Amino acid sequence: MQKSVSSSYLDEINWNNEGLVPVIAQDKESGKVLALTWMNQETLGLTVAEGRAVYWSRSRQKIWRKGELSGHIQIINDIRLDCDKDAILLIVTQQGGIACHTGRQNCFYNKLEGGKWQVVEPVIKDPGEIYNR
Amino acid sequence: MQKSVSSSYLDEINWNNEGLVPVIAQDKESGKVLALTWMNQETLGLTVAEGRAVYWSRSRQKIWRKGELSGHIQIINDIRLDCDKDAILLIVTQQGGIACHTGRQNCFYNKLEGGKWQVVEPVIKDPGEIYNR
Repeated sequence: MQKSVSSSYLDEINWNNEGLVPVIAQDKESGKVLALTWMNQETLGLTVAEGRAVYWSRSRQKIWRKGELSGHIQIINDIRLDCDKDAILLIVTQQGGIACHTGRQNCFYNKLEGGKWQVVEPVIKDPGEIYNR
Repeated sequence: MQKSVSSSYLDEINWNNEGLVPVIAQDKESGKVLALTWMNQETLGLTVAEGRAVYWSRSRQKIWRKGELSGHIQIINDIRLDCDKDAILLIVTQQGGIACHTGRQNCFYNKLEGGKWQVVEPVIKDPGEIYNR
């Protein structure tokens, strides 16, 4: 068996034992970290092909085109791989300005203060409005 | 058995089946995403207690006080938990301006260009100098 000369960028990634890699989405404009999600080979390939973030939903065990229900699509500006080749950073343009399913700009809205997690980011749009259009 | 009234912030986190949670470190000053690492309950507790990032090294299976060899300590400014409570974001002040063991500012220095990963960030300091002091 001769190995293909041109190895894919997908083959260089150290996928975990579930075939996944963690993916950080960062907003190009604000610099805010929007979310931590996961991808498999297929969804990273789709992300590259389509120019928008396509994740693997671990809870639903299916392909998740970010924004497919909400319209809050993430347009890809840059795709980075880390030194250990087991984590990806996406620089994205967040359509609608909302990345989180709770209707907030980003998912990291719980801040550790005085030994407790306090919600410190406002809901921009009611999730009922976002998902029941 | 009566449950303790004051539950710990650690108990609210959805640790994975290895007892870990992925942790994003973001530089307060530049806004750059520096690295994706991992913590267990003990190292998050140490991070909070010491005010500096303490991770769990999966490769070495031991506590890793970031900067213990390099001096490149990460001072904690903010600790955030995401909507699913299974990912953490640290806003840090990166001492020495170098987060990566390769001597680069951050770990996400491989950029996908033309279907290949290209190194696009410079080495600021030779790792030999950093670790063999």
